[in-house]
Amino acid sequence: MDPAKDTISSIGEFGLIRRLTKNIVLKNKSSVTGAGDDAAVLDYKGRSIVVTTDLLTEGIHFNLVYTPLKHLGYKAAVVNFSDVFAMNALPRQMLVSMALSAKFSIGMVDEIYEGLQLACERFGVDLIGGDTTSSVTGMTLSITAIGESAAEDLVYRNGARINDLICVTGNLGAAYMGLQLLERERKIFESTGSQPELAGFEYLVGRQLKPEPRGDIIQYFREQKIKPTSMIDISDGLSSELLHICYNSGKGCKIYASKIPVDPETAKLAAELHIGSMVAAMNGGEDYELLFTVSLEEYKRISEKPGISIIGHVVDESEGKLLIDDDGKAVELTAQGWNSFNE
Amino acid sequence: MDPAKDTISSIGEFGLIRRLTKNIVLKNKSSVTGAGDDAAVLDYKGRSIVVTTDLLTEGIHFNLVYTPLKHLGYKAAVVNFSDVFAMNALPRQMLVSMALSAKFSIGMVDEIYEGLQLACERFGVDLIGGDTTSSVTGMTLSITAIGESAAEDLVYRNGARINDLICVTGNLGAAYMGLQLLERERKIFESTGSQPELAGFEYLVGRQLKPEPRGDIIQYFREQKIKPTSMIDISDGLSSELLHICYNSGKGCKIYASKIPVDPETAKLAAELHIGSMVAAMNGGEDYELLFTVSLEEYKRISEKPGISIIGHVVDESEGKLLIDDDGKAVELTAQGWNSFNE
Repeated sequence: MDPAKDTISSIGEFGLIRRLTKNIVLKNKSSVTGAGDDAAVLDYKGRSIVVTTDLLTEGIHFNLVYTPLKHLGYKAAVVNFSDVFAMNALPRQMLVSMALSAKFSIGMVDEIYEGLQLACERFGVDLIGGDTTSSVTGMTLSITAIGESAAEDLVYRNGARINDLICVTGNLGAAYMGLQLLERERKIFESTGSQPELAGFEYLVGRQLKPEPRGDIIQYFREQKIKPTSMIDISDGLSSELLHICYNSGKGCKIYASKIPVDPETAKLAAELHIGSMVAAMNGGEDYELLFTVSLEEYKRISEKPGISIIGHVVDESEGKLLIDDDGKAVELTAQGWNSFNE
Repeated sequence: MDPAKDTISSIGEFGLIRRLTKNIVLKNKSSVTGAGDDAAVLDYKGRSIVVTTDLLTEGIHFNLVYTPLKHLGYKAAVVNFSDVFAMNALPRQMLVSMALSAKFSIGMVDEIYEGLQLACERFGVDLIGGDTTSSVTGMTLSITAIGESAAEDLVYRNGARINDLICVTGNLGAAYMGLQLLERERKIFESTGSQPELAGFEYLVGRQLKPEPRGDIIQYFREQKIKPTSMIDISDGLSSELLHICYNSGKGCKIYASKIPVDPETAKLAAELHIGSMVAAMNGGEDYELLFTVSLEEYKRISEKPGISIIGHVVDESEGKLLIDDDGKAVELTAQGWNSFNE
């Protein structure tokens, strides 16, 4: 490979991150872990602080044609809270940076902030600062969220053990199908001027525009004193996230297509658009549900809780990373998650 | 005013920030202070954590025609460390987010990271994470730096008292003149193809492309047990920063043009370009020196230290915020600092 000529798309986002972070050595006692999980972990006098950041750019992560600015602000905040929850920590503070081109009015910025502040109120987070500046074209939003936890409660990606249950919250693929619908209607509107036809699929649109991170599940874990062995939030699709857990834990997995939760609206639109609903669930992304593994001993308390599905179990690395389809056929998982560098 | 129609440039960056932050109330016990200083302050079990973030966009904050990528990475990191130092804290961790368009090769990203890592090594900071994604056009860099301090050592913008000495480190206006030179040579190159002529002004170019934040001064404060009463780093020009301290402290100031440190190269190029060197020092920005106030009792230890200039003193608010020129004439300070929203 030739770094001077090869494009970023040739190695992908994860390849780029691995390349950029492979030589990093943490030196400060307060730096517990750095890149490679949902959030970095700091330790100041025994209290763990997790920090995570996300950069959203117009035209790549959002399209203002169908994204209300208040929703954009809300989503930008909660996707970061989702990363904090995925560490089994609680979000406490947030910093927001925005670069805006000349086309944005003050009222538009106000709307973004309304969404940011609504998210902060709902999840008990303080907006403590940031940076506001201009851009040549388009909008960029950069959010940093800070959360806290007792050190012993933190859950990383690398703790999955053989025979652990693999679980997901909510249902998968809905946010992706919502995006397909919005994109279809945008194209129709742009070529014919017809108003968008979203009736019957309000749930999918809501899942795309206003995701809800699973703080309620973290609360349940605390009440029940359940500690998952590994956890990650589903931002890039189940397949990609499960592979992260497998690679980081040095394990394999076996999950069952029949057990993966899919909402009827997701299935209905998937059929209409000739997309397999399993493709949407496995590779769709942006659901911001939690994927976690727990000890078999937790079977009763996990299976009793509405909104959690047990989809499979952890196996030895040598057995592979497998999806068992409805006919009992095993398919090797591949990461076809959403990759912003794909051309 | 009409938020739906007024542009951001009509209220400026500071107006926008005030507007966006005026209703924010901090709720978490661990959130000590939020927006309104160089960095937010968190308190976890008595240890204070400061967090600051900056967003840099191509074409606004940097021009890749004359900014080597390694320098860009270095500068993006250290301007955040400068904010941490300005709280009298030490930087410990950093998160980096980047949005890149298709024109960037892997080698180019490597160069940016070399600069980021050099800055981290020099200042003992751990790079703990971030986000890397794509953009439609150009590059955006978002950096979040985290620092720590004992709570009682933190220095805010609001502590200046009447009769305190007003001090600056290093010299002012050099980074601004460096930028003027680079811009002049860029225009000549673009219209005639002539190679840039930077001889004799290497110091100014270095000040623009590779600023050095004053961790050494913070170290001196610690060794000498000096605690400034207020402090800020000079990113927008002396005038703007001094007004921040005056407004936040509810005080006035009297500073003397003859005492403001200006490097001979700055004065020489300012004369050549018909820019007053005092204009460059007062309004130029990007020097990343420290502006602070200290008690009169510290006069001896401050005046003995090479690289610190005492430029005036704090007065009652009713006396105004004044610059006394070489003829003894008093001029009211105005914030003409660099404003990225100016059209």
